[in-house]
Amino acid sequence: MTDPLPTVRLRPKADARALRHGFPWVYADELVTDRRTKALQPGAIARLEDATRQPLGTVTVNPNSKLIARILDRDPEARIDHRWVAARMAQAMDLRARLYETPFYRLVHAEADGLPGVVIDRYGDAAVIQPNAAWADAMIGDLAAALADVAGVAIIVKNGTGRARGLEGLPEEMSILAGALDGPVPVEMNGATYMADLLGGQKTGLFFDQRDNHAFAARLARGGSVLDVFSHVGGFSLATLAAGAARAIAVDGSASALDLAARGAAASGVGERFATRKGDAFAVMEALQGEGERFDLVICDPPAFAPSKPALAAGLRAYERVARLAAQLVSPGGYLVLCSCSHAADLAQFRNASARGIGRGARRAQLLHTGFAGPDHPQLPQLAESGYLKALFFRLDG
Amino acid sequence: MTDPLPTVRLRPKADARALRHGFPWVYADELVTDRRTKALQPGAIARLEDATRQPLGTVTVNPNSKLIARILDRDPEARIDHRWVAARMAQAMDLRARLYETPFYRLVHAEADGLPGVVIDRYGDAAVIQPNAAWADAMIGDLAAALADVAGVAIIVKNGTGRARGLEGLPEEMSILAGALDGPVPVEMNGATYMADLLGGQKTGLFFDQRDNHAFAARLARGGSVLDVFSHVGGFSLATLAAGAARAIAVDGSASALDLAARGAAASGVGERFATRKGDAFAVMEALQGEGERFDLVICDPPAFAPSKPALAAGLRAYERVARLAAQLVSPGGYLVLCSCSHAADLAQFRNASARGIGRGARRAQLLHTGFAGPDHPQLPQLAESGYLKALFFRLDG
Repeated sequence: MTDPLPTVRLRPKADARALRHGFPWVYADELVTDRRTKALQPGAIARLEDATRQPLGTVTVNPNSKLIARILDRDPEARIDHRWVAARMAQAMDLRARLYETPFYRLVHAEADGLPGVVIDRYGDAAVIQPNAAWADAMIGDLAAALADVAGVAIIVKNGTGRARGLEGLPEEMSILAGALDGPVPVEMNGATYMADLLGGQKTGLFFDQRDNHAFAARLARGGSVLDVFSHVGGFSLATLAAGAARAIAVDGSASALDLAARGAAASGVGERFATRKGDAFAVMEALQGEGERFDLVICDPPAFAPSKPALAAGLRAYERVARLAAQLVSPGGYLVLCSCSHAADLAQFRNASARGIGRGARRAQLLHTGFAGPDHPQLPQLAESGYLKALFFRLDG
Repeated sequence: MTDPLPTVRLRPKADARALRHGFPWVYADELVTDRRTKALQPGAIARLEDATRQPLGTVTVNPNSKLIARILDRDPEARIDHRWVAARMAQAMDLRARLYETPFYRLVHAEADGLPGVVIDRYGDAAVIQPNAAWADAMIGDLAAALADVAGVAIIVKNGTGRARGLEGLPEEMSILAGALDGPVPVEMNGATYMADLLGGQKTGLFFDQRDNHAFAARLARGGSVLDVFSHVGGFSLATLAAGAARAIAVDGSASALDLAARGAAASGVGERFATRKGDAFAVMEALQGEGERFDLVICDPPAFAPSKPALAAGLRAYERVARLAAQLVSPGGYLVLCSCSHAADLAQFRNASARGIGRGARRAQLLHTGFAGPDHPQLPQLAESGYLKALFFRLDG
């Protein structure tokens, strides 16, 4: 059999052992970048060899990216075609079908699901694909066809926005690949109904990664008052109201996010117990403090304050400030939930910043629970250090 | 008002700032140990001052322990009596009543619940107290009375076994302080009925800390076969059977633990799908491998292989070996749960050892979920590094 695929080769200094043990990436300075390799189209499929010409697997190459090659398959003879994509997607689907009773979840979580750079969120019979690697952009038709086959969705959105595509040299774009959307999509989760805007919202419309943390917060909320700061479309507030919270206020800087939250509250039958407050989260927390307001449960789920190592010190100060302001708004014996989605701040750093802030707010705390992203966001063990989402659940002093 | 309490004072080198910020312990070399302090009875109540004679709080002193003083109350005027104990216990009870629908949980988790060295597990109308600090041993009558008042339990066991009491210079003992026990106690948890021996079992009879991890494993088990290695009384296997696993085998070295597991399986109505295999876990896993047995879900919850820093390297090798043997017993596309209750092995070390073992078993894995002890085992944020229990949930390759 003739081999139509080009071959790329590691430099001697590259860590072939890590690749053999499951590390998924080859950095640009680890690959022999001769003229032939440089001439490959972004997203080209190739065979990878180590420096001694032993085969390592089938990769996709992007000469324009720092991640110059990503392992697609350990089999150097793999054919990366529609069948291959569909088989990977079916494996991903099996896991979610086992975990969730309703069809709302992250269906594909990139490298950990064997589809490097590909994120797919499922919203019932709709789905949003984020092709954040050149190969996925090139094979978007195969991805969409496999998605329709495997998950049976009728509406498929391509969301080509976000920072990752820029690193791959891919353009920004947003399009509907199949079906049609008529406004926000209702999502059933944790006993509430959320409204997700699959075309104009943050991420793909909803933050599925926080589902288990929403559920844990709901266990603490029964009968009490809730303040949901950086609420987006009401992830925490609607779950707590559905679980019996007496009232909840969602605070966010985005009017459209708060509008979706209010529509979700109405759809969940909890609209009368729900209110919103638009504004800067820090300013609103300071204002509430001035008004003498206290809440039985305060949640802060801010954007990434420390997305990268250079931003770490300032980011940790911001987390400490959030913790201080929020702790002062918690009733005696009440609960405080602090979240971080910063890659650069690890769990211990974030926990320490949070504990410092609580102390500066003149409160003492028990740490009840530490939550991460849900199991529809699997990780490669080799990359688990970068687990970005952490949620800390505290009870404060009486 | 005259002050009947003795005063103890920090040395200048002691970290008074950490104590002011919630650190709960004073080490022996941080305290001025004059003749008067050395003469204090183990468990004596005293006022603590910093080196400049500023009050820091009310402490209990044990001149025989490396933890020479433990903070009982930030208030230097606190009266440590029956009312004080009952107030602390009521705070602990409030949290559990909010979290759990049935009265089976850890009711008091020592320092984090404001009762240093005191562990209380509740089993319906029975409870087991572990007084692991001298003050608690001295005030056992007040603790038992408060427990009866606050939780309404009728049967109270004092479990004075375990390593912690030795460090405090306390004797081993086991006694019933109130009521009477007539054999093992049934415990309703995660849809199953467990049988807990409050007088002769490990710990206080059951491992409540694993409850949430049992529940997560149950989500993965439906319709499949389960191998529960180091099963104790069947924590994982009974929960998975109750959730619809096709069959489960519990492996343990203790015949009495397996007998309780079998009685629990019968009480749960799943006895026909449950089997036990007594023996050394490593030997049984190797035998099953030889028999060509495979399971859709394999769980290993061994005793602490790395209880202390000197045991760390050997402990991590043991975790790696467990991971390798267990991974080889998992069906294609099946699930693997690996647990560690070792203080000395942190999360990253345990995860790396587990990933290495899985790789040496010639398998690849996704990490789905990382679980810790449940929220009835709160932590002081200042001591959270020592969170001992970790559970890693993997899906293995097809």
